[in-house]
Amino acid sequence: MKKSMIRPLYVESSKVFYLDQKLLPSQECYKETNSVDELIQAIKNLSIRGAPLLGLAGLCGLYLSALNCTDMVKHQKNVTSLKQARPTAIQLSSITEEFFMKHKHLSLKNQAKSYFNEALAYEKKMTDESLSIIAHAYPLTKEFKSILTHCNTGSLAMGGWGTALGIIIHTAKSAKKGFTVYYTETRPLLQGLRLTQYELKKNNIPAFCIIDSAAAFIIQRKLIDAIIVGADRIATNGDTANKIGTYMLALCAKKHQIPFYIAAPTSTIDYDLPEGSNSPIEYRSGDEISTRSDFQALNPAFDITPGELITAFITEKGVLYPPFQKTSF
Amino acid sequence: MKKSMIRPLYVESSKVFYLDQKLLPSQECYKETNSVDELIQAIKNLSIRGAPLLGLAGLCGLYLSALNCTDMVKHQKNVTSLKQARPTAIQLSSITEEFFMKHKHLSLKNQAKSYFNEALAYEKKMTDESLSIIAHAYPLTKEFKSILTHCNTGSLAMGGWGTALGIIIHTAKSAKKGFTVYYTETRPLLQGLRLTQYELKKNNIPAFCIIDSAAAFIIQRKLIDAIIVGADRIATNGDTANKIGTYMLALCAKKHQIPFYIAAPTSTIDYDLPEGSNSPIEYRSGDEISTRSDFQALNPAFDITPGELITAFITEKGVLYPPFQKTSF
Repeated sequence: MKKSMIRPLYVESSKVFYLDQKLLPSQECYKETNSVDELIQAIKNLSIRGAPLLGLAGLCGLYLSALNCTDMVKHQKNVTSLKQARPTAIQLSSITEEFFMKHKHLSLKNQAKSYFNEALAYEKKMTDESLSIIAHAYPLTKEFKSILTHCNTGSLAMGGWGTALGIIIHTAKSAKKGFTVYYTETRPLLQGLRLTQYELKKNNIPAFCIIDSAAAFIIQRKLIDAIIVGADRIATNGDTANKIGTYMLALCAKKHQIPFYIAAPTSTIDYDLPEGSNSPIEYRSGDEISTRSDFQALNPAFDITPGELITAFITEKGVLYPPFQKTSF
Repeated sequence: MKKSMIRPLYVESSKVFYLDQKLLPSQECYKETNSVDELIQAIKNLSIRGAPLLGLAGLCGLYLSALNCTDMVKHQKNVTSLKQARPTAIQLSSITEEFFMKHKHLSLKNQAKSYFNEALAYEKKMTDESLSIIAHAYPLTKEFKSILTHCNTGSLAMGGWGTALGIIIHTAKSAKKGFTVYYTETRPLLQGLRLTQYELKKNNIPAFCIIDSAAAFIIQRKLIDAIIVGADRIATNGDTANKIGTYMLALCAKKHQIPFYIAAPTSTIDYDLPEGSNSPIEYRSGDEISTRSDFQALNPAFDITPGELITAFITEKGVLYPPFQKTSF
């Protein structure tokens, strides 16, 4: 399987390199930058995306900032901008904060050196976590004949094999016969149609795209054995912020009694968030839906799925159930 | 209100005129045809659409066929093609069949004359039914401060003021203060974003577009008081075929205890269909989702909402509840 693994974001010499996910699948284009402002822009416009990967993006941003800043005030300002670039996925702010606190006492030059090494280590850690998630999932998923997923949760979102999509690709490759993947197109930015389809194709896995709102019908028609998706932020009671449309899928799964799994590294758990209703939710421009000038839209990029609708949480530490406590694993 | 009513399809002299709904809203373009084959093509590609309007399209097709056929065999063949042009909305086949059976004993010339008059009468009847539906809805809807709808169910789908969208426009115009309309974009063909938005704008009603999969979240956040949609075919137990995505909306409404209404003329009831699971469902080309060649899709254009999820059926004969029997009104 290794040959199709993608390295979506990494540090090298004095630069950050990233596969521009906005251009996929029509262009496979790596970009390089030495500017933290450019990196923040790439995060905001979703050229770099995926909750776990945004943790790495935070480290990359710390690296570029420390490397290029001449004073600590500017560096601190960059750290704040970086943490706020996108609000919902916890890792961008939590990883940025964690490693800034860890190294801020160092000179900027030594901070840069540290962040560089931390970025490489975090990248390796994500790959390891991805493999652990897949391993923990397999006993649950090996009997399924069809799985539906939403958005993109593969290599592009995490490195390694990703979370939910990594599980699905592994299950599909292990299946002895007919196994079918369904994925939503994922409006408005089509992460399913563009990115999930791209990763499935790289792995030669046949799959069917559906429009997001067709999920209820294909579940009703018994075409789906399980739904597996990722997560952007998990409250300690299990309420989960994830790509808009996730909550609807969980409701459909519950109605038709099929399992609904969240696959995510435990870094996605927000131990300061007891339940999901206060989870930060990003509202994005209506231009993502239509650029017509005579038009108003409400465009939440995430929603909250109540923990009670989630069958289990597949993490690198095993299959977990809420309530989540830091000491519980 | 009258000035903004749209006449989407009508017969005049030896032709059929229709507002090409595929081109809306960027072009308001009426097309004319004297060819039943062209008319069938316009039905298949959704230039003419909307369940009640497809009944009128059937009459228009009968008219053009009778007018231009030189023998009854060809005419009969046209009738079959016309009935089968789209399978889910009942009116296309039921109205075509009803009026063909009524007049088929006449000469082709006299049939043409009859269908012409029937088409004008049916157009008038749809407008009357639309006004009755709106009148019956008002006691139910007048207290709502926000309504969500799906797809397009306005003048474009029925003439008159339409069904669900007609109710919403009337409720919005009658509301003393803050009333908010939400409508889904309605993937893949964007009948919400293109057509519903067009009608709302013509009536100066502010509204917010959401992506289809955001409905669950905005309902969870208590932004919606009720959902009202149309119908393509209603089984006698109340199970309702309607635009893909409807079932998901009904599940969300049930979960959050807001009313979910179907607004449709009683011509939408299929008295030969005891329950919805056998309702014909049209699957359309994956090209509607993406024209990429490396891509497979499953693209059902309709789904089935169980009658138990539907609060009430708002029809021209009043607010009805299943089971439906021909004698019951």
